[in-house]
Amino acid sequence: MASAALIALDWGTTSLRAWLLDEAGQVLDRQQSREGILSVPAGGFIAVFEAILSPWRTNSDPLPAIACGMVGSRQGWREAPYAPCPCAAVDLQHKLARVAAGASDLVIVPGVAFDPGGQPPDVMRGEETQVFGALAGSESSATFVLPGTHSKWVTAEQGRITRFATYMTGEVFDVLRRHSILGRTMSDGVVRPDNASFIDGVEAGLNGGSGLLHRLFEVRSLALFDRLSALDGQSYLSGLLIGSEIAGARETATGDHPPVTLIGAPDLVAAYRTALHIAGIAAEVADLEVTPQGLWRIAVAAGMIGR
Amino acid sequence: MASAALIALDWGTTSLRAWLLDEAGQVLDRQQSREGILSVPAGGFIAVFEAILSPWRTNSDPLPAIACGMVGSRQGWREAPYAPCPCAAVDLQHKLARVAAGASDLVIVPGVAFDPGGQPPDVMRGEETQVFGALAGSESSATFVLPGTHSKWVTAEQGRITRFATYMTGEVFDVLRRHSILGRTMSDGVVRPDNASFIDGVEAGLNGGSGLLHRLFEVRSLALFDRLSALDGQSYLSGLLIGSEIAGARETATGDHPPVTLIGAPDLVAAYRTALHIAGIAAEVADLEVTPQGLWRIAVAAGMIGR
Repeated sequence: MASAALIALDWGTTSLRAWLLDEAGQVLDRQQSREGILSVPAGGFIAVFEAILSPWRTNSDPLPAIACGMVGSRQGWREAPYAPCPCAAVDLQHKLARVAAGASDLVIVPGVAFDPGGQPPDVMRGEETQVFGALAGSESSATFVLPGTHSKWVTAEQGRITRFATYMTGEVFDVLRRHSILGRTMSDGVVRPDNASFIDGVEAGLNGGSGLLHRLFEVRSLALFDRLSALDGQSYLSGLLIGSEIAGARETATGDHPPVTLIGAPDLVAAYRTALHIAGIAAEVADLEVTPQGLWRIAVAAGMIGR
Repeated sequence: MASAALIALDWGTTSLRAWLLDEAGQVLDRQQSREGILSVPAGGFIAVFEAILSPWRTNSDPLPAIACGMVGSRQGWREAPYAPCPCAAVDLQHKLARVAAGASDLVIVPGVAFDPGGQPPDVMRGEETQVFGALAGSESSATFVLPGTHSKWVTAEQGRITRFATYMTGEVFDVLRRHSILGRTMSDGVVRPDNASFIDGVEAGLNGGSGLLHRLFEVRSLALFDRLSALDGQSYLSGLLIGSEIAGARETATGDHPPVTLIGAPDLVAAYRTALHIAGIAAEVADLEVTPQGLWRIAVAAGMIGR
């Protein structure tokens, strides 16, 4: 068995995932906990870090450790200010934050900012690592779509993140379902992308133009007229919002939209793949393990491995 | 003093307003309570109705009474099914609901539905009465904008409501401010339409195209970059959503947008007037008392007065 060379952490808002990697970036072991940064009390980061490392502790020198995600935000352990676009994996080394954590130091990956002037800035934190993992060192150009609470559309050119845009799709879905009148005509349940209502919603979103605030009310009026069942309401709303996101992204793309690569949880990726297909945009799906791959590439570029 | 001829009620979700009107529709007296339909227990409508009528009870024949608003919804006292578009005040008499309420009957005005086929339906309940009040019997054509939780854009032609669209602007503002990450960078406070951030938001919304879900995230990134203060966040978000609503309405209008007439609470009307001005749409403001005027016109058309 190859020997361990790096501890890689994805430390987000609500979860913590950790991987033990060898020199070539292969995963030797993994752990997962619910100790996202929101559940860590003030001053408590080091204890959580030590606990997750303990099964991997050896008698030899401590392994280098690297983390991405909200652990580097103002609400995290140590703020790692954003690196500007355009940004390659190697550029991140200038913005790494470091915290002393017992025997090991922990290196924290910065987020990336897109701030072209003349329009509001945009930010990501964690997704840059997934993109560098999916690029796998390639210098090619590609568009990545990372669905989620705050979906990201990321353009990479010659191995660098050159621009990106965030869409609040997942969070808007969640607050409308839970807190608006739209939730009253919906039963609990899951979004089913193979559902006719999801497809109807996607088409309404794709063709909705500037009228999203009107299209949202249609979710209610369709239910009042018994044309949308309580069971299908969530699928329709999800489709509507994802369709609107794709329409927005397509509007800002120059010329035909190239194929995109989806990165994310399988259920979300399936929903987006269906919606992108309806929009006429071809989509591939990235490897699920892009995050440890990205952390390993950033660590290699920063000279953290094989010192 | 002219003698009382009609009791008119606007019985909504969270409030109840009542007017005593003479034969010509002049307001003789008024009352207001917080007993909207959501606060009325099952079987409790008649008691609330009797209580609000008691100061106006006389020894002569009971006065006719008419109500509009959510009291006629499925969750109200008695459902008054929607009247279809096109719809004049006189057409509503075929869809009036009636409940026996002690000495008086109460007549409940139906909502109006726009269901042209080929697109989802739309509904209003209460706003039709305001529009007929603002039309004041005129057979002219006009566009009315009724800002609120669910904003309505209503087209009237020759005195009839011919089509309309609902925008969830007010409710989306409220749930995002209270329940999404956007609220975290906002201090409590009021929307100030004379504020530069409100105007910036309106312009972002007007020019946002299909990208509202992206523009919403900009509220956060502007705050993260200290380009939007906690005090101005609400004004920006409000402007963004109102601008998006206007862009959506403009997109569906044929040709140049005609001047519109605003109906609503003074603070909302002021915000919309500013936003419409930025969009290059002239706006007048309707009389505040359009609701009792509308109820009186519907009652006259239904033969309820002077029998």
